[in-house]
Amino acid sequence: MTVYGFSPSGNCHKVRLLLEQLGRDYRWVEKRSDDGSTRTPEMLAKNPNGKVPFIELDDGRVLTESNAILHWLAEGTSFLPDDPWLRAQALSWMFFEQYSHEPYIAVARFICGWTPIDSPRRADLPRLRERGHQALAVMERHLSSQSWFSGDRYGIADIALFAYTCVADHGGIALERYPAIRDWLSRIERTPGFVPMSAPDPAARALIDQSA
Amino acid sequence: MTVYGFSPSGNCHKVRLLLEQLGRDYRWVEKRSDDGSTRTPEMLAKNPNGKVPFIELDDGRVLTESNAILHWLAEGTSFLPDDPWLRAQALSWMFFEQYSHEPYIAVARFICGWTPIDSPRRADLPRLRERGHQALAVMERHLSSQSWFSGDRYGIADIALFAYTCVADHGGIALERYPAIRDWLSRIERTPGFVPMSAPDPAARALIDQSA
Repeated sequence: MTVYGFSPSGNCHKVRLLLEQLGRDYRWVEKRSDDGSTRTPEMLAKNPNGKVPFIELDDGRVLTESNAILHWLAEGTSFLPDDPWLRAQALSWMFFEQYSHEPYIAVARFICGWTPIDSPRRADLPRLRERGHQALAVMERHLSSQSWFSGDRYGIADIALFAYTCVADHGGIALERYPAIRDWLSRIERTPGFVPMSAPDPAARALIDQSA
Repeated sequence: MTVYGFSPSGNCHKVRLLLEQLGRDYRWVEKRSDDGSTRTPEMLAKNPNGKVPFIELDDGRVLTESNAILHWLAEGTSFLPDDPWLRAQALSWMFFEQYSHEPYIAVARFICGWTPIDSPRRADLPRLRERGHQALAVMERHLSSQSWFSGDRYGIADIALFAYTCVADHGGIALERYPAIRDWLSRIERTPGFVPMSAPDPAARALIDQSA
């Protein structure tokens, strides 16, 4: 299996983290998502939506969308509950992540680290941060009574939500007011086979520091 | 089962359409999503994310996120393929819908029909329409070689994508240039048990007409 991904992307890191924790073999092909590398004719032939991550099987079949990839990889493993209702709850959190969490927390981070310091997109940051905090408040509430988002054990909904929550501060969204989220992040970092996300490169790090 | 939903919402209509096509019994509780009705204390106790649709079982358990609800309802039916790879492809299209389609096509429609004619949000319409057309181009390409988004037959990925595609013109996104999409919409309208989405109320209809 080949994974096409951009290492500092949380959506891409989700796939790497699960593959590592499952002990699966895979090849990683690095493709930046901020310079057009995912929209070349060769890449658009594989994913017409022009995004990473996606996986390509040895027979050429392609699966796109990070959370659909997680769900497919986790089938039949402990990372996805057997119980239909718990599976549905995990999937619900994964749709929450892509609709109510990532578009604010990941996009704020992308703007801070991967757009010029004078980008007009920076005018969106206050609204993105406000909506990001709304998503975190929903997560904090859940974690006040439950340990995980994937039923009664760690699984793919946790991986999906971990990806950008653990770097929310890159987008100017601090986690100080969310003690249950901070405990949950620590629990995930102690799961077997955990691998951290790649740090932003020095240029992105400098932009993030200037955006604080 | 009780469905909480706003009838002119495509996300809510998805649930109604599948329940009707499955012949399931359900109670529908109408909750507008444009006037705070989904964020009352009573509603936030059921869905802390403050959105509709969600379903509530007779024992009080709640499932949120339209596409997670579809997936749960379709399990074991012809609306979700048995083959794991085809299931994964259907789920991939459902994540595409929530990330790359709905935030443009549904939001453009909402702004046109459910915000004042002088709303500052209307400045977003050109960008939303451009991104909406990008999503439709990806769908058109798929439909040029395949009939459905849920494997080899009509299913929940088709329902998910149908919901806002069929009313894209309300947001000023015309379907003229997408013959395969128009054929696919017609095929869906002829599936057994199909029910159309509620028309916008007269106030929304008037705003849509003024927004063209």
